[in-house]
Amino acid sequence: MVVVMSPEASNEQIEAVVVRVRMTGGEAFVSRGRHRTIVGLVGDLDDFRALNLRGMPGVADVIAISTPYKLVSVDHQPERSTVVVGVESGAHPVMIGPGTFTLIAGPCAVESLEQTLEAAEMAKAAGATVLRGGAFKPRTSPQAFQGLGKTGLHILAEVREVTGLPVVTEVIDAADVGLVSSFADMLQVGARNMQNTALLQAVGAAGKPVLLKRGIQATVEEWLMAAEYVAQRGNLDIVLCERGIRTFETSTQTTLDIAAVPVVQRQSHLPVIVDPSHSAGRRELVLPLSRAAIAVGADGILVDVHPDPESALCDGPQALAGADVRELASTMRKLIPATGRHLGSPSPVGM
Amino acid sequence: MVVVMSPEASNEQIEAVVVRVRMTGGEAFVSRGRHRTIVGLVGDLDDFRALNLRGMPGVADVIAISTPYKLVSVDHQPERSTVVVGVESGAHPVMIGPGTFTLIAGPCAVESLEQTLEAAEMAKAAGATVLRGGAFKPRTSPQAFQGLGKTGLHILAEVREVTGLPVVTEVIDAADVGLVSSFADMLQVGARNMQNTALLQAVGAAGKPVLLKRGIQATVEEWLMAAEYVAQRGNLDIVLCERGIRTFETSTQTTLDIAAVPVVQRQSHLPVIVDPSHSAGRRELVLPLSRAAIAVGADGILVDVHPDPESALCDGPQALAGADVRELASTMRKLIPATGRHLGSPSPVGM
Amino acid sequence: MVVVMSPEASNEQIEAVVVRVRMTGGEAFVSRGRHRTIVGLVGDLDDFRALNLRGMPGVADVIAISTPYKLVSVDHQPERSTVVVGVESGAHPVMIGPGTFTLIAGPCAVESLEQTLEAAEMAKAAGATVLRGGAFKPRTSPQAFQGLGKTGLHILAEVREVTGLPVVTEVIDAADVGLVSSFADMLQVGARNMQNTALLQAVGAAGKPVLLKRGIQATVEEWLMAAEYVAQRGNLDIVLCERGIRTFETSTQTTLDIAAVPVVQRQSHLPVIVDPSHSAGRRELVLPLSRAAIAVGADGILVDVHPDPESALCDGPQALAGADVRELASTMRKLIPATGRHLGSPSPVGM
Amino acid sequence: MVVVMSPEASNEQIEAVVVRVRMTGGEAFVSRGRHRTIVGLVGDLDDFRALNLRGMPGVADVIAISTPYKLVSVDHQPERSTVVVGVESGAHPVMIGPGTFTLIAGPCAVESLEQTLEAAEMAKAAGATVLRGGAFKPRTSPQAFQGLGKTGLHILAEVREVTGLPVVTEVIDAADVGLVSSFADMLQVGARNMQNTALLQAVGAAGKPVLLKRGIQATVEEWLMAAEYVAQRGNLDIVLCERGIRTFETSTQTTLDIAAVPVVQRQSHLPVIVDPSHSAGRRELVLPLSRAAIAVGADGILVDVHPDPESALCDGPQALAGADVRELASTMRKLIPATGRHLGSPSPVGM
Repeated sequence: MVVVMSPEASNEQIEAVVVRVRMTGGEAFVSRGRHRTIVGLVGDLDDFRALNLRGMPGVADVIAISTPYKLVSVDHQPERSTVVVGVESGAHPVMIGPGTFTLIAGPCAVESLEQTLEAAEMAKAAGATVLRGGAFKPRTSPQAFQGLGKTGLHILAEVREVTGLPVVTEVIDAADVGLVSSFADMLQVGARNMQNTALLQAVGAAGKPVLLKRGIQATVEEWLMAAEYVAQRGNLDIVLCERGIRTFETSTQTTLDIAAVPVVQRQSHLPVIVDPSHSAGRRELVLPLSRAAIAVGADGILVDVHPDPESALCDGPQALAGADVRELASTMRKLIPATGRHLGSPSPVGM
Repeated sequence: MVVVMSPEASNEQIEAVVVRVRMTGGEAFVSRGRHRTIVGLVGDLDDFRALNLRGMPGVADVIAISTPYKLVSVDHQPERSTVVVGVESGAHPVMIGPGTFTLIAGPCAVESLEQTLEAAEMAKAAGATVLRGGAFKPRTSPQAFQGLGKTGLHILAEVREVTGLPVVTEVIDAADVGLVSSFADMLQVGARNMQNTALLQAVGAAGKPVLLKRGIQATVEEWLMAAEYVAQRGNLDIVLCERGIRTFETSTQTTLDIAAVPVVQRQSHLPVIVDPSHSAGRRELVLPLSRAAIAVGADGILVDVHPDPESALCDGPQALAGADVRELASTMRKLIPATGRHLGSPSPVGM
Repeated sequence: MVVVMSPEASNEQIEAVVVRVRMTGGEAFVSRGRHRTIVGLVGDLDDFRALNLRGMPGVADVIAISTPYKLVSVDHQPERSTVVVGVESGAHPVMIGPGTFTLIAGPCAVESLEQTLEAAEMAKAAGATVLRGGAFKPRTSPQAFQGLGKTGLHILAEVREVTGLPVVTEVIDAADVGLVSSFADMLQVGARNMQNTALLQAVGAAGKPVLLKRGIQATVEEWLMAAEYVAQRGNLDIVLCERGIRTFETSTQTTLDIAAVPVVQRQSHLPVIVDPSHSAGRRELVLPLSRAAIAVGADGILVDVHPDPESALCDGPQALAGADVRELASTMRKLIPATGRHLGSPSPVGM
Repeated sequence: MVVVMSPEASNEQIEAVVVRVRMTGGEAFVSRGRHRTIVGLVGDLDDFRALNLRGMPGVADVIAISTPYKLVSVDHQPERSTVVVGVESGAHPVMIGPGTFTLIAGPCAVESLEQTLEAAEMAKAAGATVLRGGAFKPRTSPQAFQGLGKTGLHILAEVREVTGLPVVTEVIDAADVGLVSSFADMLQVGARNMQNTALLQAVGAAGKPVLLKRGIQATVEEWLMAAEYVAQRGNLDIVLCERGIRTFETSTQTTLDIAAVPVVQRQSHLPVIVDPSHSAGRRELVLPLSRAAIAVGADGILVDVHPDPESALCDGPQALAGADVRELASTMRKLIPATGRHLGSPSPVGM
């Protein structure tokens, strides 16, 4: 941590910073420049944060050098993690992490047993090993369809039984975490709730793998701090999902930050996947962005598929159907090996 | 609503759009251009949304012309609203709305009875009529101080009794809304939770005025849709609070979107205030931004004050103390009358 | 300047940084933390930049602590500057800077002598002391009206003769600087050209005051570096103009960064004004944003006025006319004194 | 084009819009909704723009449905273009466009004959068929190295003679276009100058292929309008280059908008390449982003290589050297065929 003093800071003010740092057992090195003085701190970052140095007189800025997250950091665990999904539910367990590329697919919203089953079969045919589907839908407009709730969870469980695909579904309220956990193999925290700390702590305590989407307003650092909230409750089975950030560009719904994948992989040991469907919001971009995600080195993708996108109650314009799904499958077969991985398959029985 | 067909759309595809619209009782007007055809829709917007027109073949885009919110819109209520805070708690009730300018002030976080009381007295001396103070703190870092919780609520109630100031405090989990409502005069929904729909619905049902901060990622339209979530539960006592949006500029914590104040006032009847403390994150900008908020026509400001910012457990660098608070008071006395309003004072007894 | 070493940096790599710094006569202080080591540099920033430290093995980041601009910095000149416009042209000279508030107004584009004269009279009646008007118009679309060019400059000179108002007009090509300088009292560099270094250097050498608009993509720091380009050619008669930055919000054309005014005033001695017309792009926001600019402490505003906005060839939707201009005048009379300044008036003869 | 009337618009105001549109020979269709009325326009877009409809009383908004660019649009030319570089200079001509993937590589700045030649040989060994190198460097800071100028152009020509690689170099001032054209095979317009219309027009008239970088503040639409400026001067030999946009994320220099590649390819017939070096600003991201660019379907990449990045005078931290260049070559060999293209090679003699 570096404390930058303002140009007009007095010697007494500089000394006061040094004294306060030393009181916590840290060390402070003063470097006097022509225009300003900086104080370099060595010691425990959390202790330093508690000192509120930024509020001291004469302090212009405090710059954190170390990362503010720990458990999810490569400093804590250098080798990349693998997250196993679907161990207890009778589904075919799936391993998300290095060496494999995982396709998670399904309808944006669960609308009926028939629709979900049909979408799951489409997904499976394309190579998907995990089924996604929303029972609780957070929508920007209160007039929009908000999901089937508990009925949707029952449908997902039924489709899992038929297809063997483990299920990931979103939870939007800490109060629902118990209910959703009793059905799902993996809990999704959506972009809108990435900083809903009550929810992060609840899913952290639920004992299920977590799919943590990046908030559209969140820096990579803030995203990793949200993961740290989950990890602090003892749960390191976290898969990160880049789904686009909000920028000025309007030709896509959000701007897919494809560079975030290698950036995260250098800072955290957690697997990171990409959601090409929600980032673009346009069906015709899902295939090119899926190819980019594979090539950049993501550990998987999360794709909306729907048997009949025209009638979808949620995000129909971005769902893949028929020929597009087949093209996705063919693309994955060509590109994944060219990046030195293989398409994820269900783990062998008894793993 | 306008449906824009893609250049290669066939007549059958255009006709299919028209037929689908008419099935809901709406009208569709087709305008054929040289390159593309557009279909103008007249009828019920919610009906049209349910049609999923964007997913139909040949449709390039669907442009909403009407606003997607209703209860909070000037179309629904042309005259500007006044929200009364502190009616039932024995505090001096305060009216936020046209004709007055309200100062809401207090510590970012409640740390102790002494600190909160001292901050409240500072706030009152500066002209504040509502006390702010956080008991539940949503923090980006899980290592940061998370608030005193229920103890903090007790402190706020005690300070209200001493000072007569009604209290606004943040609630961050739908499960806490009952508890917080039993203490607070006004419930704050913070920027991180602006799209936490479970929370929005819970505060909407709680029967207390709501202070709804704009998310740093949210457009004005999305902010008003969040307000609509609250309003749909029967609660129109909503005060909006602009607190800065996330941009590329790093010299301030967020970029205060000062133009959002008049923009909102033309679209919604709800009062709108400004938070100069959190938007800038720097104490020395709080006064200039407070002046800008008064002059632009905001209905009030929300300001962090602290008896001893150097020791503050939360956001000390932006809290006003001693001389700054007196300068704020003096500035308000000069500027508020120059904008044709008066500084809000407690309502007369028996209102 | 602080060099942050990567966690895996070797002692040799750290030593190599120290040696390179010392070779330039600078000093390097090494602070070893638990996870990483930082090296604090004291000496000449330009020398350090030339060292390309960021490219050295083991270096994770290089953080500039000092500002990268000098001549325009408060470190170079602590007292705020006043820029005098219109000294040689026979106009009434105007002083832009502390103590006064200057209204610069006129048509976005010069269309004809009649229109420009009428707009100038409107502007003058509202209190304007400088006339703005575009002869060379940079437009996003090549189909849009590009300005009258030299004819426009003649019109501006004629209107100056009639009204006594000094003239500011934009120059968009380094090759035109001589021509435009021979007519104008002040040269405007537009937002699109803020990083057109050839143009910045040419206006820096032209010996006329410069109005430097902030690019919509530019941080405050980059804006001040653009000003430094002008200053390096010996011209410190620079007035900065905040005109909004590009963000995700679409209800205004750009987002007026009102906080940039006090931020700049703490970092630079140059006067800074606000353009409420182009930042919002909507006439109904010009008055509220003008009030905010006055109150925040800007040294002036730049406002589009047009005798007949409906027929304007450029940016008609944001130009003020008739009653709006009178309301602007009335607003300024009330607010400017309340902020401790007076409305700029032409300097006394013989200054 | 659609004109949206404000809710309070009168019948007279609506009629006035219709009349004005019809006066230009266009047609206007009025659709009256419950809250507002819209007027759909059919006819010539440029004519409509000149009408200044947005400035008319009662008009709330004007929405362009058609694209504002023509020559560069797929409406104008549905089949994708190929741009040939290096026809007249004795270099091996290169075709950039569908079916091939082109590597353009070289040093960010030309520093000396040795350094440039060495970088060119590295580039060529990796599969590059075009040499990039900057003689005129636009820099944010006036203290930074500004390039060798004409000397740099001579060096580039000499290296072309030795290696056979055609040369692309940046031009930053309209006055230099003639000079640079006499040396270069392709003129680069940099991101900072994307809206420098004088420069765009000058390169449009120069008769050489143009490499047009996207401004960091520019929407895809504005970028295509900048290309239209070039095209209007009769030059359609334009290659677009995505190089990242400015967002709030700070872990990369800019955010690579990888989705812009397929977006542009659906709207324009021009080839589009990606610059992974400048978008990220970090060497370790160049390879993953190059892979993403190949997979997403870009027509090429533009990569900084330098024989000795530690001593580079410009952007050393992002330049590839030794082993990285070899890995890039190996990556391209695997991935390009998997996307159905082949690595661009010099065109056969006599094409």
